[in-house]
Amino acid sequence: MNETLLMIPGPTRVAPRVLKAMSENIVNHRSAVFGEIITETTEMMSEVFQTENQSYILTGSGTAAMEAALASVLDKGDKVLNIVGGKFGQRFMQIAEVHGAVPTELEVEWGHGVDPEDVKYILEEEDDIKAVTIVHNETSTGVTNPIEEVGKIVNDFDALYVVDTVSSLGGDDVFVDGYNIDICVTGSQKCLAAPPGMAAITLSEDAWKVVDKTPTSTYYLDMKRYRKSGSGTPPETPYTPSVSLMYAMREALYAVMEEGLESRVKRHQLAALATRNAIKAMGLELFAQPEVSSNTVTAIKMPEGVTDKELRGTMRDKYRIEMAGGQDHLKGNVFRIGHMGNITEREIITTIAALEMTLKGLELDICLGEGVAAAEEAYLID
Amino acid sequence: MNETLLMIPGPTRVAPRVLKAMSENIVNHRSAVFGEIITETTEMMSEVFQTENQSYILTGSGTAAMEAALASVLDKGDKVLNIVGGKFGQRFMQIAEVHGAVPTELEVEWGHGVDPEDVKYILEEEDDIKAVTIVHNETSTGVTNPIEEVGKIVNDFDALYVVDTVSSLGGDDVFVDGYNIDICVTGSQKCLAAPPGMAAITLSEDAWKVVDKTPTSTYYLDMKRYRKSGSGTPPETPYTPSVSLMYAMREALYAVMEEGLESRVKRHQLAALATRNAIKAMGLELFAQPEVSSNTVTAIKMPEGVTDKELRGTMRDKYRIEMAGGQDHLKGNVFRIGHMGNITEREIITTIAALEMTLKGLELDICLGEGVAAAEEAYLID
Repeated sequence: MNETLLMIPGPTRVAPRVLKAMSENIVNHRSAVFGEIITETTEMMSEVFQTENQSYILTGSGTAAMEAALASVLDKGDKVLNIVGGKFGQRFMQIAEVHGAVPTELEVEWGHGVDPEDVKYILEEEDDIKAVTIVHNETSTGVTNPIEEVGKIVNDFDALYVVDTVSSLGGDDVFVDGYNIDICVTGSQKCLAAPPGMAAITLSEDAWKVVDKTPTSTYYLDMKRYRKSGSGTPPETPYTPSVSLMYAMREALYAVMEEGLESRVKRHQLAALATRNAIKAMGLELFAQPEVSSNTVTAIKMPEGVTDKELRGTMRDKYRIEMAGGQDHLKGNVFRIGHMGNITEREIITTIAALEMTLKGLELDICLGEGVAAAEEAYLID
Repeated sequence: MNETLLMIPGPTRVAPRVLKAMSENIVNHRSAVFGEIITETTEMMSEVFQTENQSYILTGSGTAAMEAALASVLDKGDKVLNIVGGKFGQRFMQIAEVHGAVPTELEVEWGHGVDPEDVKYILEEEDDIKAVTIVHNETSTGVTNPIEEVGKIVNDFDALYVVDTVSSLGGDDVFVDGYNIDICVTGSQKCLAAPPGMAAITLSEDAWKVVDKTPTSTYYLDMKRYRKSGSGTPPETPYTPSVSLMYAMREALYAVMEEGLESRVKRHQLAALATRNAIKAMGLELFAQPEVSSNTVTAIKMPEGVTDKELRGTMRDKYRIEMAGGQDHLKGNVFRIGHMGNITEREIITTIAALEMTLKGLELDICLGEGVAAAEEAYLID
C-alpha cells in the first residue's frame, strides 16, 4: 500500500530523513531540550515566511491555523472582506461566520484570480472592514492569487491583511513582511513536505494590537496563550504539542534551508510548467486561467466521455499514482495533480506517462509520448 | 538527550513498535486505505472507552477534545456545572466561559475528590443545568474523582455528563456506557502510550441530540463535521488529519488490546501502590487524600528545606529522570511522578532509587533502600 506515489495537493511525500527524525524518542514538552527545538523550528519558520515576526507552530491542520487567525482578531459583528474563489476562500468566510463576524464576500469565478481593483473598490465603499482574507494558492482550482498587489492596496486602509499560504509557502514567493501581510498561516504537509498535523502562523505587531483588544472566542486556538507560553524560558506551547511532529517539522525545515527557498520555488515553478505543457500537448484543457496558474497544483478539465472513477481509479489501481478529484461543484469535472513538496522531474514524468497510458486505455485519442516529451522539454529549457 | 526516563504525567514513553509504525510512508488521507485505518482505530478506541457509540480521533491535544465537547453542546447563556478540584477542572470551566456558557463552580479542595452528594445538591437547587463536567483523574493533584457515583446522580437529571479521562483512560476503570457518560474525551500521550498530538472523543445519542440543536461556535472542533466526514465511504476526517500519528495511535491501541484492558489497569494500580508505599517509607508526604489517590500520577509534598530546582534538577541532570513540578499555587510545593503508559516495576524502582540518592545528596534524613524495599514489597504482594 505504501508504494503509492502521492500526486495530490497534500499530504505530500515525506523524505526518509524526516520520517526518521519523527521516530525519535519522546521528550518532556516542558523542558529546556524541547524549548530549543521549538526555538529552532519557529525561527526557521519565520525565515520561510520571510518575516521578522515570531512564528508559532500549532498542533492541528491548516484549517486550525486559519481559525486561530480569524478567531483571534474578529469579534462579534466585525466586518470582514472575504475574497472567495474556491473552497478554501469559502472556508475563511465560514470560519469568520462561526465567530460572529459579518462577511462581505468578494466572489471570484473559480479558475480566475482576484482583480486587486475589486478589493480596492470594496475597501473604499465599505467602512470599517477590520480584516481582508485571501487564499494565496487556491488548492481547489489551481489558481494563485496576486497577494503582493492586493497587499499594496490593503496597506492603504485600516484593515488587517490575513493570508492563507497553506499550499504555497515553500513552493511560491511569499514575503510576509514585503507584502504587508499581517497574519499568515500555513500547513506542514504541503510544499514544506513534513507530515500532516501541524500548522504555522505568524502575526505582525498591528495584528497583535487587534488580538489584544479582541475577546477570545476559542480556547485551543487562542493566540494570546501561544504568545504567553512561547515567550517563557524555555519557550513552550500552551497545550501539549505533538512532540514527534515537531521533530519532523524541524527536519523538514532543515531540508528547506539546505535547498534554499529560491531554488525550491524555482523547482516548483518548473514542475508546474512541465505539467501544464504536458497536459496541453496531450490535448487536455487546463482549468485555471493561464496568468494565474499555480506553482503547486494543476487542475485539469475531465476529458469528454471519461469518468473520474475511470481516470483516477486506473491511475491509482493500475499505476499506483494518487491524484485528487474535483471539490464541490467541480466534483467529476476536474482532476488535480499536486506537484508540491519534494517533487522532481522523475515524479512529473512518471505521472504524465501513466496518464497517457490511462487515457489510451480508456480509448481516448492520445498520441503516446507527446505529453512526456513536452514535460522533458520544459525541464531542458531551463 | 533521548535517554531521559519520562516519569511525568504525559507524554509518556512510546514503545519502539509504535515509533516504527509512525514512520511509515504517508498515504492519501481521503483514500480507502486510510479509511480502513480510521475505522480500525476508532473501533478500538470505542472498545477502550467501553462504549457502543462511535469514537472520533482529533488532531490536537486533550484540551482540543475538551473544547470539542463543550463547544458542541453549550450555547451562549447555557448553564453548566463545573466540578473544579485542580487545573484541568478549571480548564473545563474556562472553556465553557469562552463559549459563552454560564458556569456554576463546585469547588473542591485540591487534593480531595468531589463528594457526589454535593453534585446532587446543586443539581436539585439549580434549574436548567445543561451539562456537568468532571475530570476523572486530576493530573495536577494526583486525585481520582468518583465518576461512577457522580454518573448515577447526573443520570437522574436532564443534564449531559461530560467526563475528561485524558490521564486515566487505559490506566483506570472507565466504563463510558456503564457510568452513563454522555461525552468522554481522552488524549493519546497518557495511559495509551501513543505520541502526543491526538485526542479522542465519544458522544452518546443524547449528546448528539443536543449537538444538533446547538449553534456551532467552533470550526476546527465542530463535532457535526466530524460525524459527517466519519460516516462517509470511506470514513474521513473533516480536515487533514495527522496521518503518521493515526498510524501510531492504531499501533498503540493494538498493544493495549494485546495486554488487555483489565491487566493494563491492574498494572497501573500496582505502579501507583508501589510508588505511594515507597514515598511513605521514605518519610515523604503524599498530597492527595488516600481514598482518592490516582492510579496514574502521584503528587508528593516538597520535603522541608529542599527546592523544586534542587530536587527535580538533580533527578533530571544527574539521574536522567524527568518528574513533573507543581502547577499554579502548587508550584514549588509538590512534585509529581507520572506512572502511566508502559510503566513497569523497573521504571518505578529506578525512580525511587534515584529519588533516595537525590534526597540523601541534598542531606535529608533518608535511609537508603527503604523506599525501594517498600516498592518491591508492593509488587511481591500481588
